[in-house]
Amino acid sequence: MDNKYDIAIIGTGPAGLSAAINSKIRNKSIILFGIRDLSNKLVKAPKINNYLGFYDFTGQQLKDQFQKHIDYMNIDIVTEKINAVYAMGSYFTLMVNEKMYEAKSVIIATGMEHTKSLKGEEEFLGRGVGYCATCDAPLYRGKTVTIIGYNKEAEEEANYVAELTNKLYYVPMYEGNYSIKENIEIVKDKPVEIRGEDRVKDIVMKNKDIATDGVFILKDSVAPNQLVPGIEMQNGHIKVDIDMKTNIQGCFAAGDCVGKPYQYIKAAGQGQIAALNAVAYLDSLK
Amino acid sequence: MDNKYDIAIIGTGPAGLSAAINSKIRNKSIILFGIRDLSNKLVKAPKINNYLGFYDFTGQQLKDQFQKHIDYMNIDIVTEKINAVYAMGSYFTLMVNEKMYEAKSVIIATGMEHTKSLKGEEEFLGRGVGYCATCDAPLYRGKTVTIIGYNKEAEEEANYVAELTNKLYYVPMYEGNYSIKENIEIVKDKPVEIRGEDRVKDIVMKNKDIATDGVFILKDSVAPNQLVPGIEMQNGHIKVDIDMKTNIQGCFAAGDCVGKPYQYIKAAGQGQIAALNAVAYLDSLK
Repeated sequence: MDNKYDIAIIGTGPAGLSAAINSKIRNKSIILFGIRDLSNKLVKAPKINNYLGFYDFTGQQLKDQFQKHIDYMNIDIVTEKINAVYAMGSYFTLMVNEKMYEAKSVIIATGMEHTKSLKGEEEFLGRGVGYCATCDAPLYRGKTVTIIGYNKEAEEEANYVAELTNKLYYVPMYEGNYSIKENIEIVKDKPVEIRGEDRVKDIVMKNKDIATDGVFILKDSVAPNQLVPGIEMQNGHIKVDIDMKTNIQGCFAAGDCVGKPYQYIKAAGQGQIAALNAVAYLDSLK
Repeated sequence: MDNKYDIAIIGTGPAGLSAAINSKIRNKSIILFGIRDLSNKLVKAPKINNYLGFYDFTGQQLKDQFQKHIDYMNIDIVTEKINAVYAMGSYFTLMVNEKMYEAKSVIIATGMEHTKSLKGEEEFLGRGVGYCATCDAPLYRGKTVTIIGYNKEAEEEANYVAELTNKLYYVPMYEGNYSIKENIEIVKDKPVEIRGEDRVKDIVMKNKDIATDGVFILKDSVAPNQLVPGIEMQNGHIKVDIDMKTNIQGCFAAGDCVGKPYQYIKAAGQGQIAALNAVAYLDSLK
């Protein structure tokens, strides 16, 4: 198998980026998964004064500064979306739909999803509700699927899934121009509840109901325990020690996903700690 | 008593500065104790690439950037040296020789002293060896004292102590111009061992021995458990939880003094965590 790395880093917020630069400085081979904009949360921040060294900065300016830093270090971002991370003992397998990556250690820096669950979302999880449309798409061949997308990246998944489904509704939870295929029906409405019996039957919106066989909710980040089966959580966050170690050997975490405060330089600091401890872990394997 | 603050921050490295800006943003009254150069360690760093957002920076450049940030926030540095912090229950008393400050909470960000102890240093601690010359100066009226100074700030202490002693030797552990009084004898030699019986009798240098009643060793930072009596240590560092809380209520710590890695953005991130938890602590007192 190709695609083997020392450290795989998931997330391009301050925690993931800080982990990436620190891992690279220590001469480890890294792969960094994230989004072009680095962090949807960061670019929207109107004013940042509490990141030591930068004052009177907009989130966009700080993001540009981070981008210049990783460019300077020749760090690329892989924009594929990791669906699952499996601990295999001495290494990890990271799944991107049908594609696989392998890494000796993993740093989870996926941030925190603040949007509340829909009514019925947890009840029907796995029975018509899912968080990875491309993973489950083959199950919905010829059927009706609704995708609730929280960001532009969701459009790509919608376009892929629409190749298989009979009917695809796309519910964008953001403003903008939607780059989606013609056979997809855009529904500009507010989802309220997912209903069904054994399985999902329909989704109730503020203005109308839509009959659907499946509902995929594509948020900025997935819950860590869905991403990494077996990872120990505490109060909705990944449980880490002061070295940013999780309960899984070789798996570290940093940033919002490990707990409050949800702040940029706290995340960057933890990304550095995670990276240096991942490096120490790798050195201990030799 | 005057000099009352919400949060007293000791140390002007990245941890202390980050704590200061974050406390100030939350509208707390703060007092920041440190040195003009912010951090002797930082200004000496030849090249820094691992502080997310700044690449190809010298330590001096990063220090200048930090200075601009605190100037922008109207944060001043008090260059008095804190000798001791006493937990009084609902507040803390910070001692600067005969002067006192009071704060409802304290953030310790004093860094880590890497220089090894001298032979005999620990053995004679409190029996002629000390770390605060100005505190103990009255005990050495008319006697002979040796001050081993690791930085320019030590010169001020030497000048004060020389007003009381019969004879003062000053052993500078750094290069530069020494601004000390004429009655002080500069000894450019390397200290090797402190000797005595009940109390200190002499100090052995590489090239000669000096008979002395007291030896003061003035490093960049004092050991946290000398600074804050009762603070719990672990492997030579202040023991903190993930919220940067120490075992003393209202007392937080951040940066090198709480453990490895000894890195700037890790320290800045912890300074932020300490500040936000100090703010939460203050709010809980209301």
